[in-house]
Amino acid sequence: MDRYLVISGDGHAGLSPEKYRDYLDPKYHAQFDERLPREIAMREAMEKKLLISDFNTKWRADCGNDIYGVWDHDIRNKVLDGDGITAEVLFPDGITERNAPPFGADVGLRCLGADPELLWAGARAHNRWMADFCRMEPNRRIGLAIIPVVFDIEEDLKEIRWAKENGLKGLLFPCMTDGFQPYNHPQYDPVWKLAEEYDLPIHFHSGASPAIQDLPGAIGSFLMEYPFWMTRSMWTMIFGEVFERFPKLKVVYTEGTEYWFTWMLQMMDIRASVKHTSGKLGDFRAKLTMKPSEYFARNMWVVASALADRDTTRACYDIGIDRIIWGSDYPHPEGCWPKTKAKMLESLGGLPEADLEKIFSKNALQVYSGLDLGAMNAIAAKIGPTKSELKHQIAAE
Amino acid sequence: MDRYLVISGDGHAGLSPEKYRDYLDPKYHAQFDERLPREIAMREAMEKKLLISDFNTKWRADCGNDIYGVWDHDIRNKVLDGDGITAEVLFPDGITERNAPPFGADVGLRCLGADPELLWAGARAHNRWMADFCRMEPNRRIGLAIIPVVFDIEEDLKEIRWAKENGLKGLLFPCMTDGFQPYNHPQYDPVWKLAEEYDLPIHFHSGASPAIQDLPGAIGSFLMEYPFWMTRSMWTMIFGEVFERFPKLKVVYTEGTEYWFTWMLQMMDIRASVKHTSGKLGDFRAKLTMKPSEYFARNMWVVASALADRDTTRACYDIGIDRIIWGSDYPHPEGCWPKTKAKMLESLGGLPEADLEKIFSKNALQVYSGLDLGAMNAIAAKIGPTKSELKHQIAAE
Repeated sequence: MDRYLVISGDGHAGLSPEKYRDYLDPKYHAQFDERLPREIAMREAMEKKLLISDFNTKWRADCGNDIYGVWDHDIRNKVLDGDGITAEVLFPDGITERNAPPFGADVGLRCLGADPELLWAGARAHNRWMADFCRMEPNRRIGLAIIPVVFDIEEDLKEIRWAKENGLKGLLFPCMTDGFQPYNHPQYDPVWKLAEEYDLPIHFHSGASPAIQDLPGAIGSFLMEYPFWMTRSMWTMIFGEVFERFPKLKVVYTEGTEYWFTWMLQMMDIRASVKHTSGKLGDFRAKLTMKPSEYFARNMWVVASALADRDTTRACYDIGIDRIIWGSDYPHPEGCWPKTKAKMLESLGGLPEADLEKIFSKNALQVYSGLDLGAMNAIAAKIGPTKSELKHQIAAE
Repeated sequence: MDRYLVISGDGHAGLSPEKYRDYLDPKYHAQFDERLPREIAMREAMEKKLLISDFNTKWRADCGNDIYGVWDHDIRNKVLDGDGITAEVLFPDGITERNAPPFGADVGLRCLGADPELLWAGARAHNRWMADFCRMEPNRRIGLAIIPVVFDIEEDLKEIRWAKENGLKGLLFPCMTDGFQPYNHPQYDPVWKLAEEYDLPIHFHSGASPAIQDLPGAIGSFLMEYPFWMTRSMWTMIFGEVFERFPKLKVVYTEGTEYWFTWMLQMMDIRASVKHTSGKLGDFRAKLTMKPSEYFARNMWVVASALADRDTTRACYDIGIDRIIWGSDYPHPEGCWPKTKAKMLESLGGLPEADLEKIFSKNALQVYSGLDLGAMNAIAAKIGPTKSELKHQIAAE
């Protein structure tokens, strides 16, 4: 094939807020109706506070109606075709056109302070819509189920079973467990066991961080801190011996600042080596049979979203090119779309074909099971970026 | 002078727990008496849980009575002489012989969940003892006042004034502000103003982190996370424009993993530059007149405690050798003592004399005002490490 099969590891999809009502258990309709206007107002206020209007208004105007691919079947396919993307992993959203699932079950999935029953209801509404959305185009949509995993293990297992039966191909867990048990707690073992048995990779997506207050420097601080929050599970699970007990469990980190991973990998290995400076502390190392970075290289993947410069590409090589899944982050302003091909060329042009195959599809194919490679290749043969157009690095760096 | 003046940026001193009673406002004596046995039991249990007994028992046995320099005037001087250290910055403790100030006012200084009145009483008891301890040997002891700054600004200002009047030369602030206002909140402006006016550097010392639970991997996770908690003030203060308003304010980070700083410096500068991936977010950069790393290079210092290998030394050069203050971390097991000279040779032997002068004393002399350089040099001339003994790098790396 003279074209690349591209599977984006990072796409967002969700209904406009009022439409989630149809997917919600009717017993929550009254609460949904009561909250909806407040929820919309809150998200509008947040947008005004957080986003630079210059940048976003211009970006938004350029997008036109194609942004509605966030929920529209036909537009979604058209956008993917234009981007040269055959298939994509679908996260919920919370940014685009206020399309967050109800009751706070958005991509940030904050559990602290949430009403567990309502958060679950919101998650289930989204999961049911997502399963339908994926059924309409099963070869191009790799849907994730939202699992607010911290509250009740039996609920978790029930929804994971439902997700598997309904064709969803991975699980989204909350990054922040504060106020609940961290991911090194053995209470999660039944969840890891089922995810391993079903081969459902667990996903952590950036975004959650302690509430951004209206203070000077809050955005700068948020940008400094979100990689920490999104990757706490990395060291708690590795040092917590989770991959000793569940060696085939898969974990995916999405949109998390690539160089952050190279630093944390170094730090984990240093922490796991006995130096004089850490000699006095506990014997946690005794039960690890491999270096932390070796667990990472077996059980974890990083979705490099919106790769837009060569520095980030170099960081991907530092992480290990076998670990990297390219992502477009449609339809977010920080993503590649609608300039995906130009950005691919800028960040990846001229790399060895074998490496591009890994980050565009081969690594993702190791993570997600049950995909129809033949069907995907047939699509890629028509719309994928050609190997010749990505053969050369453009001059600008 | 053929010897180096060495000012250690990291020493710990504190009374044995029952002796703090004499320095405590009598109105808290009943609560002190009631709590003391529980406090001691809690610290013993913590020690058993956290520390590897093999390592610590052997280390402790080798120390003999010299560990009591943590509170004993004569032993302290003897230990410093043996180590070649002329003077040192004195933090409270919480590890050695359970010598934490009462009511949780230890080096970790956790404020969340504490009784503010009692925590302040404990801090004041320690500050009063520390002032006395420094008066006994003013040229060798640079005492810090514990300031649980998050509760009440007027209380803070009162104690900072007391500290200044009583010869203390810096302030120890809590690393963790969770549950309270973060350090980019303008409520702290009067505190920054007074610290700037008095030229009292603010210190953050590693140790605090969310509670270590009795879970697999908890120690490994603690080791991964404490640098984050101890340096949150770095980005909240820099992005929060604190150094725009208080350009002479000084901040010192002690025992915080050297390479962590090189990473965070890179990350702050990246976050402050407008890239497509961060373009959508707030305009916090507009009010910064310098790069984050430039504020760091003007207003912040790093105490490199127990430098024990060449990797760490290299990280110090990456941070900027003008920012580094060498520290011994007496009397902690992870510190240099009692093998300080051997460790100096291992980590620093063969470095340019001018660089050693900076990290041994010149940088510290920029941070701490009111020191008697003549008196210190007279001591160093007798006990400091000789320039010739540090001239060559030892072979082993």
